[in-house]
Amino acid sequence: MSLIVQKFGGTSVANPECLRRVADWVLDVKKKGNDVVVIVSAMGDTTDDLIALAHQITPEPDDREMDVLMATGEQVAMALLTMALHAKGADAISLTGPQAGIRTDAMHRKAKILAINTRRLRRHLREGHIVIVAGFQGLTPARDIATLGRGGSDATAVALAAALKADRCQIFKDVEGIYSADPRIVKEARKLDEITYDEMLELAGSGAQVLMSRSIEFAKKYGVQLEVLSSFEKKPGTIVKEEVKSMEDVIVRGVAVDKDQVKITLEHVPDKPGVAARIFREFAGAGVNIDMIIQNSSATGRTDISFTIPKDDLQKAKSVMHSLATKTVFKSINMDNDIAKVSIVGVGMRGHSGVASQMFKALAGQNINILMISTSEIKISVIIRKKFAAAAMRALHQAFKLNRKK
Amino acid sequence: MSLIVQKFGGTSVANPECLRRVADWVLDVKKKGNDVVVIVSAMGDTTDDLIALAHQITPEPDDREMDVLMATGEQVAMALLTMALHAKGADAISLTGPQAGIRTDAMHRKAKILAINTRRLRRHLREGHIVIVAGFQGLTPARDIATLGRGGSDATAVALAAALKADRCQIFKDVEGIYSADPRIVKEARKLDEITYDEMLELAGSGAQVLMSRSIEFAKKYGVQLEVLSSFEKKPGTIVKEEVKSMEDVIVRGVAVDKDQVKITLEHVPDKPGVAARIFREFAGAGVNIDMIIQNSSATGRTDISFTIPKDDLQKAKSVMHSLATKTVFKSINMDNDIAKVSIVGVGMRGHSGVASQMFKALAGQNINILMISTSEIKISVIIRKKFAAAAMRALHQAFKLNRKK
Repeated sequence: MSLIVQKFGGTSVANPECLRRVADWVLDVKKKGNDVVVIVSAMGDTTDDLIALAHQITPEPDDREMDVLMATGEQVAMALLTMALHAKGADAISLTGPQAGIRTDAMHRKAKILAINTRRLRRHLREGHIVIVAGFQGLTPARDIATLGRGGSDATAVALAAALKADRCQIFKDVEGIYSADPRIVKEARKLDEITYDEMLELAGSGAQVLMSRSIEFAKKYGVQLEVLSSFEKKPGTIVKEEVKSMEDVIVRGVAVDKDQVKITLEHVPDKPGVAARIFREFAGAGVNIDMIIQNSSATGRTDISFTIPKDDLQKAKSVMHSLATKTVFKSINMDNDIAKVSIVGVGMRGHSGVASQMFKALAGQNINILMISTSEIKISVIIRKKFAAAAMRALHQAFKLNRKK
Repeated sequence: MSLIVQKFGGTSVANPECLRRVADWVLDVKKKGNDVVVIVSAMGDTTDDLIALAHQITPEPDDREMDVLMATGEQVAMALLTMALHAKGADAISLTGPQAGIRTDAMHRKAKILAINTRRLRRHLREGHIVIVAGFQGLTPARDIATLGRGGSDATAVALAAALKADRCQIFKDVEGIYSADPRIVKEARKLDEITYDEMLELAGSGAQVLMSRSIEFAKKYGVQLEVLSSFEKKPGTIVKEEVKSMEDVIVRGVAVDKDQVKITLEHVPDKPGVAARIFREFAGAGVNIDMIIQNSSATGRTDISFTIPKDDLQKAKSVMHSLATKTVFKSINMDNDIAKVSIVGVGMRGHSGVASQMFKALAGQNINILMISTSEIKISVIIRKKFAAAAMRALHQAFKLNRKK
């Protein structure tokens, strides 16, 4: 007998019909003799509707009260899914995040899971119940309700799978799995049967939206085998795990694009030790995520420093730059949001030279100019003009033969 | 400094505009130097909407899961009211029933409050917060969410007021207070300034819908001074307490009508000791609430027994009667739902004779035939034909001069 954790997102439980289908799927797994724990998100647009309701009351609602409000979305979904299972004759019981023993820190609206007390959950499993747990929520040390922020229901599923030592954690999405590239952009994109945690992490950090880094990191840390699969069709998805077959042969696993970055250039920065450290310490202190950094050496004693940040951090970055400018650390600022970051990812890169030049050649073949470059062990990213993003992805997908089954 | 508990029902918090008005009222009380605890119901039709959603999933949803589902309604309202208070600069914090320490029995959908642990609530009050508590819900011994059934939010308010030894418990309603009669039926009905717990209990048991008996009983038991007042206009309501001024002078405090009863007659019941006891034991065992009972003595050795029950208990009553009929306890059944119960209530009746005859005279003056009569220390009820209900109320209101300020 195996223990399977399944997570269904908002579109999978958007209405009573969807809930009945999910109940059928869950029941199938239970009937095969498995223990099943199901994590649900709020139905459809519920969370957005609740946020809109709060904004009708006040433009800046308190984070703690937003969590109280938003946590109701998952609570409604879990009760209804449990009823749908009852209607099909199953033994099922619902638990809120706090009831399921999910303990978080006190950072409302973006809480992190600190620990999970699985006692109650295990008892219900022993009693033969399918246990339905509200995703996205837990209890703080002050016994307040906290939500986990973006990707929080996936994180709940992975954390529960780890705590319960589940045999598999299935994440049902509105896509069929992880693709070699975004299929909306690259027609030939292929669903991957397997991918490593590290590759998935780099893809997530490069703009692939399917899984958030926090869930993948957690799965990697605790060795939880993930499966990403479709909530609309019954077919195998993509397995995310530590090592995958034929790892040596595959150089590039996938291509990703991120159009939500801004490139910032600080011009005429004094070219002496400690200046860059000071600049980036200030950004880090303000919670700005710096991605790529380029600094050109110069002979004039002054240099330009360029870096990229997520669009969402732009306001915070601007106030840091304002404070740096008054201290005359640099002469002028250049901001550019007409950019896209295109990345290729694959663990096979480690043992292969020439991947970067192959990438640059493919882009040059399309007359695409490269503005910035950054590399990691298993990833190469380039910044290009936004309008070339789709063409770049297609060219790279073809150059590395990602359409071929490996 | 006083501690005031305020309870706002669903229509008082139906939308953001209503919530802002409630916030203003709460803040006024706080600014006068009082500690304030506020109990809220779910917004507008939320509870009905949630029940309808559950019935889209299954015709007979599980009681435990219905409680999980319905409890979200109050949780949404409490978060939004707290935000509305924040927007006006107040320190406020929301607590679910379980967080507020409300412990109930395990009877889902109609749980009773067993105890209240006020530690957390008192701490927040000490810290200067207005505390907003979800009505209608608590935590069972198994640490499940339970709802309190009809009138549950009022019961929460009264129980919290008792546990916190509050100076007053204000129940805001969509009426201005307790009336001498239903103002929709009797135009001259007058709002009462004061009423005793006992009178209020008899009125509630006689069809007056403003407060449920459970809340009044609780208030009486713990000496909580209640005030029923309008959530739409700022003016004094009706105070419910142990003794009221000029109690001796007022014979009848109010008139009430209940059209939701059914009169059942069991015909040709053996007229010997123990038969009636046996019949009513069976009804009690099935949870049927028997109200008025009449048995005529006879010379034939057989008699008729008539009684009234709430319309809602009719299905349960029918199965009891079916079982009694197979045991040939009686010959035939007569069911009559074309009836109304009209009652007059007043603690002053105790010391006055002739109240009943005055009542019957007033009804006779309108040519209204009386089908059944029952009396208590402070109440006289009669069953009449439904079509005469309004005329009877008006005649009694006038006969006992209830339109006059006392």
